[in-house]
Amino acid sequence: MGKEEKVILVTNDDGVTAPGIRALIEAVAPLGKVVVVAPDSPQSGKGHAITIGVPLRLNQVDIFEGIEAWQCSGTPVDCVKLARDKILHRKPDICVSGINHGANHSINIIYSGTMSAAMEAAIEGIPSVGFSYLDYSFDADFTLPKQVAHTVTKKMLHSELPAGTLFNVNIPVVKAADFSGIKVCRQANAKWVEEFDERRDPHGKKYYWLTGEFKNQDTGNDTDVWALENNYASLVPVQFDLTHYKLKQQLETEWTF
Amino acid sequence: MGKEEKVILVTNDDGVTAPGIRALIEAVAPLGKVVVVAPDSPQSGKGHAITIGVPLRLNQVDIFEGIEAWQCSGTPVDCVKLARDKILHRKPDICVSGINHGANHSINIIYSGTMSAAMEAAIEGIPSVGFSYLDYSFDADFTLPKQVAHTVTKKMLHSELPAGTLFNVNIPVVKAADFSGIKVCRQANAKWVEEFDERRDPHGKKYYWLTGEFKNQDTGNDTDVWALENNYASLVPVQFDLTHYKLKQQLETEWTF
Repeated sequence: MGKEEKVILVTNDDGVTAPGIRALIEAVAPLGKVVVVAPDSPQSGKGHAITIGVPLRLNQVDIFEGIEAWQCSGTPVDCVKLARDKILHRKPDICVSGINHGANHSINIIYSGTMSAAMEAAIEGIPSVGFSYLDYSFDADFTLPKQVAHTVTKKMLHSELPAGTLFNVNIPVVKAADFSGIKVCRQANAKWVEEFDERRDPHGKKYYWLTGEFKNQDTGNDTDVWALENNYASLVPVQFDLTHYKLKQQLETEWTF
Repeated sequence: MGKEEKVILVTNDDGVTAPGIRALIEAVAPLGKVVVVAPDSPQSGKGHAITIGVPLRLNQVDIFEGIEAWQCSGTPVDCVKLARDKILHRKPDICVSGINHGANHSINIIYSGTMSAAMEAAIEGIPSVGFSYLDYSFDADFTLPKQVAHTVTKKMLHSELPAGTLFNVNIPVVKAADFSGIKVCRQANAKWVEEFDERRDPHGKKYYWLTGEFKNQDTGNDTDVWALENNYASLVPVQFDLTHYKLKQQLETEWTF
């Protein structure tokens, strides 16, 4: 490998055996040296969870031809932390996460293990991006998501980006001929309206399954939800300074304790 | 109860039996009707995780005199979702989370179950606040944190706040006479520098414990870390629109795919 070769850390939240991570590896392999560190089991909805109370396991796996790959017993965030400290012993040039089986647009970013893994790398100052495909199925056709992942990753590797740059990219389910391109967006003001499915176990005791319906209250045409509905892949630049500066200013002038 | 009585949802991430939640209940009980829904086991570091793959259990408990209280088998975020749908059947007037045993300032908000529970309520449009005390010990003296929690919650209940208002409040370990008051702050640009403690199990196989050191790279005197070091309780208003608008603008003008 040439001294200029980029090191690309690949992770996800669906687990190392999910078709989406294989698609992502194929998409970015031509761009540098790929190292995979991903959960050994599905970790959807884990948000930015880390493992504190139990120790972590890390095992090398041989499932991607010619690619160094590890599976970890922890969360997506644990994978990124371990990758840097115990496998790479340096910061990778980029961290790519996904390709997630299912959407992570709008408020879903908060719950997403895919995006939390990418955010963890971004906090470390590593340019990072999460990719999610709006097709949940195991045998989804990843042709378009792979093209988008390749294009965005290549662009990021060859651009001057501020430290901590983080992108949330979602890809619509659309025929190649109908694809509108990649659009820079803001996070839509949309959310889940949840109800719990209440059931009784064989002993008569209640238990609950989370269910929900997605509601978009945002009519803007610059949101990720709008872009996806109009056959664009959405790219939202993401920050992790959660300070609400406008409200801060208001409180400073109006609130006394 | 009078028709004007406020409904206060109390939750946490240390679990329903932690001393901190008892302190919080005592702090806010004079302000309205308190309902407690909290995890049945410690959930620190769970971030914004939700439970998808297994059903949830919810059981009423009788551990706080005269207070309706429930324990849930899920994460802090699950507790808030279940509280609204299955226990309150309405939005509470406020959601208070904590008092966490340990700090949740700066980037720690991202990993914090305490703050994620409060954020979940804020996403639902409920004014919400998380309280964290910089004393980790089981027998910490919660006198000052209780005073701060009472003051902030009362102020929030009697103020016109934008929908989705969310505060991250941290309280220093300091004698009452040395306490500087409550200060509105921004999130410090600080983070954990992690290393993993590598050990071998009785079978000779490696395992890893997460350890880390906290580094504050932010020299501003308007941050939560600065405030806490100067004997203030820090109050950071928090947003959950993670769009990086400045970078978005830059990409829109400079990037083509």
